[in-house]
Amino acid sequence: MANKGQAPDSTRRSERSRRAIYDAALSLVGEAGYAKTTIEGIAARAGVGKQTIYRWWPSKAAVLLEAFVDLSHQAVQGEVSLPDTGDLESDLKLVLRATVDELNDDATEAPYRALAAEGVIDPELAAAFVQNLLEPQLKLYVDRLRSAQDAGEVRADVDPRTALELLVGPLSHRWLLRTLPLTHAYADTVVDYALRGLAPR
Amino acid sequence: MANKGQAPDSTRRSERSRRAIYDAALSLVGEAGYAKTTIEGIAARAGVGKQTIYRWWPSKAAVLLEAFVDLSHQAVQGEVSLPDTGDLESDLKLVLRATVDELNDDATEAPYRALAAEGVIDPELAAAFVQNLLEPQLKLYVDRLRSAQDAGEVRADVDPRTALELLVGPLSHRWLLRTLPLTHAYADTVVDYALRGLAPR
Repeated sequence: MANKGQAPDSTRRSERSRRAIYDAALSLVGEAGYAKTTIEGIAARAGVGKQTIYRWWPSKAAVLLEAFVDLSHQAVQGEVSLPDTGDLESDLKLVLRATVDELNDDATEAPYRALAAEGVIDPELAAAFVQNLLEPQLKLYVDRLRSAQDAGEVRADVDPRTALELLVGPLSHRWLLRTLPLTHAYADTVVDYALRGLAPR
Repeated sequence: MANKGQAPDSTRRSERSRRAIYDAALSLVGEAGYAKTTIEGIAARAGVGKQTIYRWWPSKAAVLLEAFVDLSHQAVQGEVSLPDTGDLESDLKLVLRATVDELNDDATEAPYRALAAEGVIDPELAAAFVQNLLEPQLKLYVDRLRSAQDAGEVRADVDPRTALELLVGPLSHRWLLRTLPLTHAYADTVVDYALRGLAPR
């Protein structure tokens, strides 16, 4: 049910401004880098007064972080868990291939890189990034690996929070340090190696 | 044998200047970040004329890169291969524990982070960093994993260049994104999981 009588026009206007501010923040940080992105610049590009931004967010970092959280919610389209078909290997390959596509997406690569680079240097920003954006995503891997443990597909003595790093760590390494191309074939191989191990059976 | 008659004083002076320039470059980039570090600033701190720097290096990035290459040569103290005792698991744990110690070293953390952050944003700097510094280090893992394949400790169908990323990727992920503490126990667990895999045998 719609909330009648609760100023829907003003709510819609606010929502539109909020989205415009997110878009402005992401595009500016992608173009100019984190250091040169300012609240004033975001306000100008979004077509709002800078007081509007200051009323809703305490800092530039807070705006950007929320913009990324919003972006990641759009990306998962309301999904709050990883796929669980009962076949861990194919579920993980699906998820890591999608991650490869996200990381290679021209539309979001520059702002993602700007924020990641800032987190490498700034522990405070990194802590907010990890708490609000990264760990909630990693938690989905923990849940999926636990379910695989219940199904006997993952050893019972494996710690899921550590194990997930053998899946996402290699992708991060390749993307952040730009060693070699990030491809679906690479994602598949990482899943194969992580599940079966490097040593002979 | 010393090279008598080859102007040892001037060579020693050059060597001292070179080392002073490396030290100045590393400390400045650690303090001020990559963007704010200048050839002038490096020259002033090293106590040399800026023409000395321009004579030896084409750019700020080149100075920094060489400073890091020099640092990594000091770190390995002339070692050009990973330990090979015939026991892959313990050799890898030794190496990854040493990597943890290096990444946690207060003396080098700030400049390493400054350069890594710049590489996340700047593809050209990243390419030089990967070619001159990172891939030569990763090559040592390729060699060690090949030797382990010969010894039957690693499956013959495993690609060593990809496999090594299951070892170094998780450490990089934790260090660059600052998710959780980087410890010896973590390094050991990564080696265990990577070698044996997450699935039951």
